[in-house]
Amino acid sequence: MSGRVNDEFTMKEVELASTHSSRRHSSGRIPYIHKVGQPPKQSLLAEFTSTVKETFFSDEPLRSFKDQPISKKFILGIQAIFPISRWAREYTLAKFKGDLIAGLTIASLCIPQDIGYAKLAYLDPKYGLYSSFVPPLVYAFMGSSRDIAIGPVAVVSLLLGDLLQNEIDHEDVVPYRRLAFTATFFAGVTQLALGCLRLGFLIDFLSHAAIVGFMGGAAITISLQQLKGLLGIKKFTKKTDIVSVMRSVFKVAHHGWNWQTIVIGVTFLAFLLLAKYIGKKKKKFFWVPAIAPMISVVVSTFFVYITRADKDGVQIVKHIDKGINPPSADQIYFSGEYLTKGFRIGVVAGIIALTEAIAIGRTFAGMKDYQIDGNKEMVALGTMNIVGSMTSCYVATGSFSRSAVNYMAGCNTAVSNIVMSCVVFLTLEFITPLFKYTPNAILASIIIAAVVSLFDIEAAILIYKIDKFDFLACLGAFLGVVFFSVEIGLLIAVCLSFAKIILQVTRPRTAILGKLPRTDIYRNIQQYPDAAKIPGVVIIRVDSAIYFSNSNYIRERILRWVTDEEEHFAENNLPRIQYVVVEMSPVTDIDTSGIHALEDLYRALQKREIQLVLANPGPVVIDKLHESKFSEVIGESNIFLSVADAIHTFAPKTLTEEP
Amino acid sequence: MSGRVNDEFTMKEVELASTHSSRRHSSGRIPYIHKVGQPPKQSLLAEFTSTVKETFFSDEPLRSFKDQPISKKFILGIQAIFPISRWAREYTLAKFKGDLIAGLTIASLCIPQDIGYAKLAYLDPKYGLYSSFVPPLVYAFMGSSRDIAIGPVAVVSLLLGDLLQNEIDHEDVVPYRRLAFTATFFAGVTQLALGCLRLGFLIDFLSHAAIVGFMGGAAITISLQQLKGLLGIKKFTKKTDIVSVMRSVFKVAHHGWNWQTIVIGVTFLAFLLLAKYIGKKKKKFFWVPAIAPMISVVVSTFFVYITRADKDGVQIVKHIDKGINPPSADQIYFSGEYLTKGFRIGVVAGIIALTEAIAIGRTFAGMKDYQIDGNKEMVALGTMNIVGSMTSCYVATGSFSRSAVNYMAGCNTAVSNIVMSCVVFLTLEFITPLFKYTPNAILASIIIAAVVSLFDIEAAILIYKIDKFDFLACLGAFLGVVFFSVEIGLLIAVCLSFAKIILQVTRPRTAILGKLPRTDIYRNIQQYPDAAKIPGVVIIRVDSAIYFSNSNYIRERILRWVTDEEEHFAENNLPRIQYVVVEMSPVTDIDTSGIHALEDLYRALQKREIQLVLANPGPVVIDKLHESKFSEVIGESNIFLSVADAIHTFAPKTLTEEP
Repeated sequence: MSGRVNDEFTMKEVELASTHSSRRHSSGRIPYIHKVGQPPKQSLLAEFTSTVKETFFSDEPLRSFKDQPISKKFILGIQAIFPISRWAREYTLAKFKGDLIAGLTIASLCIPQDIGYAKLAYLDPKYGLYSSFVPPLVYAFMGSSRDIAIGPVAVVSLLLGDLLQNEIDHEDVVPYRRLAFTATFFAGVTQLALGCLRLGFLIDFLSHAAIVGFMGGAAITISLQQLKGLLGIKKFTKKTDIVSVMRSVFKVAHHGWNWQTIVIGVTFLAFLLLAKYIGKKKKKFFWVPAIAPMISVVVSTFFVYITRADKDGVQIVKHIDKGINPPSADQIYFSGEYLTKGFRIGVVAGIIALTEAIAIGRTFAGMKDYQIDGNKEMVALGTMNIVGSMTSCYVATGSFSRSAVNYMAGCNTAVSNIVMSCVVFLTLEFITPLFKYTPNAILASIIIAAVVSLFDIEAAILIYKIDKFDFLACLGAFLGVVFFSVEIGLLIAVCLSFAKIILQVTRPRTAILGKLPRTDIYRNIQQYPDAAKIPGVVIIRVDSAIYFSNSNYIRERILRWVTDEEEHFAENNLPRIQYVVVEMSPVTDIDTSGIHALEDLYRALQKREIQLVLANPGPVVIDKLHESKFSEVIGESNIFLSVADAIHTFAPKTLTEEP
Repeated sequence: MSGRVNDEFTMKEVELASTHSSRRHSSGRIPYIHKVGQPPKQSLLAEFTSTVKETFFSDEPLRSFKDQPISKKFILGIQAIFPISRWAREYTLAKFKGDLIAGLTIASLCIPQDIGYAKLAYLDPKYGLYSSFVPPLVYAFMGSSRDIAIGPVAVVSLLLGDLLQNEIDHEDVVPYRRLAFTATFFAGVTQLALGCLRLGFLIDFLSHAAIVGFMGGAAITISLQQLKGLLGIKKFTKKTDIVSVMRSVFKVAHHGWNWQTIVIGVTFLAFLLLAKYIGKKKKKFFWVPAIAPMISVVVSTFFVYITRADKDGVQIVKHIDKGINPPSADQIYFSGEYLTKGFRIGVVAGIIALTEAIAIGRTFAGMKDYQIDGNKEMVALGTMNIVGSMTSCYVATGSFSRSAVNYMAGCNTAVSNIVMSCVVFLTLEFITPLFKYTPNAILASIIIAAVVSLFDIEAAILIYKIDKFDFLACLGAFLGVVFFSVEIGLLIAVCLSFAKIILQVTRPRTAILGKLPRTDIYRNIQQYPDAAKIPGVVIIRVDSAIYFSNSNYIRERILRWVTDEEEHFAENNLPRIQYVVVEMSPVTDIDTSGIHALEDLYRALQKREIQLVLANPGPVVIDKLHESKFSEVIGESNIFLSVADAIHTFAPKTLTEEP
């Protein structure tokens, strides 16, 4: 219904001066009473089309295709699917310089992270590197974000590991890995499907607050998991909740901790956190935290190699296969019980990965003021993960920390992802054997240093200040993840987000309005204590569309306001209520239940000898009032353009009493 | 947040004349510019309390308890649980006269219906009568509706039969019956729980439209089921969809139909429909359709007894046990697999029964202008079904047809239910053997005549006219019930109702506003074609609270409006856009995601050198804008009381150009 403004209004501005002057009132006090407009009738098809368009194509993806020849449309179509074909032609050496530096920086950050994150998902380190080679390449061709850095991320790795572990023990290496590829495949399918069906808006149902809580909880959980590597514990719980982990840590306190490991781990953790702190304080030193992990890896590996500390119980990576991604399409389960399990895990992991990538894309697009199309991004991410699942990658998405580094290092296009991908390729081909002596404790330190910023206490405080219910969702998700498991936290987040929506649609706000002194403006008397009630009239604003979910509540609430006001008027010896004016400006729509509620309200008020008056019904509402004949029941003369008009008609005396 | 108006506003009306006159502007043209009000700060606890109160206690059930001594509170508490203790003391003989006549009328209607409905639920006829004896008595003591007639109803019987049959074949009599009692018990528990937890609003999630469709489909399904009795078919499908039933009917066309049965059935069906028609045409003949079923039973039973038509294949009721309800508490499954099955069935049947009873209660309360408390009703209905399940009753609820007869027969209180209950008691004790020769065809005719009015084609047409999406829900539920099964229809109804809510919260409407000539009023230019745009300014109204579910959409939609308007302004050589005024009157709330969206919007507009201006943020919104410091970002001077004020400040020239 809220289609685009059409051209008949084009010249309205200049006509302003000449029209309607004959209808002008002579008195300055009584304003011109305007009739309630009824919009032109729309056919069923037009109405349906505009609703579908607004729901699924609210961003008008086909806008640029309009009025173009076929050949141009074809080119535009290619450009829509592969945005690279649009910007590649304008790509310059100057831009490449920025992309090269950014690409090298994020590569040095991603390699150690990848190895660590793969361990979070209970996979061999090489799969982390694989996932930083193919997916970024695919994304560079199809994605529309210029700043996002693609690869494995901590939270998705943790979630995937947790979900997979529930189905198959990770020590059962081959089936576990096959299920991981299956889940990755279906994560991609889910993302692609959401994008193609233009259901991208569904991910908005995870509220920002719930995500903050979930991420914070995941940060704690991931850090706790790293105690295994950091303390050199060999036997560790497979559960992720804080109680199990802490019990696991202290049970082996006497004989399971390895002091050499602790020294290495804690030293480098301190170094990494210091680097992070420096990068945060001075923006121009953003590269310090970016290369610190790589430096830590190099230094610690060299140190362990020299001292052979691994003989003293310092756990090392041991072996990473040389060579790039082998094909894995034949390893995906396309039948059997693991098909459905992989599907279910894939859907959850895919949606969480999507949420993270879209949030990152939007944030950086906002900073550089370009638009990204959520649905198109989903198609890109989905394709990337489907291709990934066939080339031995697990779920990849946009990493917030690496994207931020990418942005600050001055990336211009997705070419920085290609550069990163090339570096990972070289690493896989030539350098992996050198990681043999890298101590696991370093990887743990790198992961802790990376996820620590997911724990966003400031955001939580802001949420607490702004919206208490949001804070509840945030806290619920956080505690769910920390004390139970990642899925429970996620479930709590989704449920609380939904509870809020249910609250919104069942309990809309209503307010009593009063007249602001010296104006014709009627406002909430709670917000404006100097707004005055009009004797004999109750003005009530309903702040929501009236639908089946709230129509009964609204009817009862209005009657209760009237009862309250009746008592109040009686107590103050004021004239009895004769009119109830319902200000309907915010009522954008009404359905059959809503019309019934209005009819019931009208009858109940008639019984009390009070006239129901409607002010400013919107286009859709006035249309439906007419269709249902309710406008005849209540009387056309009781429907006004504004509250002011209604008051001028019914209680003019009150107003002229003003000095 | 929208708590009651407090007393500081009490004398506002009389103060009106004296305050603020010093701030009055001398010019008549420029209105007095009022500041945006900020409501007094509420503590976290106060805010939380008022939200909880509005959500769960929106009807202020404890209102009358306020400021009362303990003893009075105790009496009020008793009266709240047993409304009979309130009205019984004022009960008069005159009232009893009305109740007696109404009670006798509904009794004569309910007895034949009960026997038929019990068959719909695949139970012996006596269970239908049992369910019209105990539950109405319980309800009379606890219920607050004065017009509802309690007993088994067609749709719930069908639904219960269908759900039970899915679990146990009804020919397996004892376990089937035990599961029926179990389901009844849990239906009662569900109703009681919803009432006690004050979650009554959840039943509002089944939209009126979906219920119309569901009931219509149920009417068709029930009527089709009666073909078995009406045509005297012996072997009949257990499925309820139209295809299976029609196949079943025609498969036995040659040898399974019994012409004597058909003659009896069709004759009396014609008689019943005629009686119904008479009752509909002339309100004073309401008793004709009310006693017609009893007359049919008596006449046809006598006829079969005389002619011994049962020897010619006319199926008869055969035997109904004498005596009142035996206890059945020991028959309820409190363990084993049937516990969960009974629970699941009970929840569904209980909610549907509740929906029907509450709708009836509200309708008649509206007609007589008294209030019924939905949650209290649920407690009454729940208790009634729990007691029922222990006294051999199955799920009872309010019957629409019998309640209408009750109302028209002049009932005054729930005493009419007690009268009906007494008549059923006498029937059970003395008359049941006389039903032996009652032909099943008569029961089928009575049921068809009763459910035919559930098929409400006029309501469906009205729904089609008013709201296309509602009609889709209606049609979906209808087709689901008719072509698949009762549960599928119900599922479709619930899903479509939810889809509508999701649409509402993700895709709120937005509108471009223009200035109505000769006024300071800004309205949707689609509804008011003479509303004029202000050069250099875009005024956009957002018609919903800004929450996580729609914040991205709103931000993008506003930017798209701005882009559209920019093009339009440029085409017409009008000055470029300098201000975007967002009219926030309908924005009743905003959460953290919403604030972020506004921040993003502000930044994006700044990039285009456009100033964001907010008009009339509500109390909650202005509070959160301050808390989040967004009001400082945008600047306090860019937040206005009304669009008119903003335009007067930023584009005064445009306005003075008016003649």
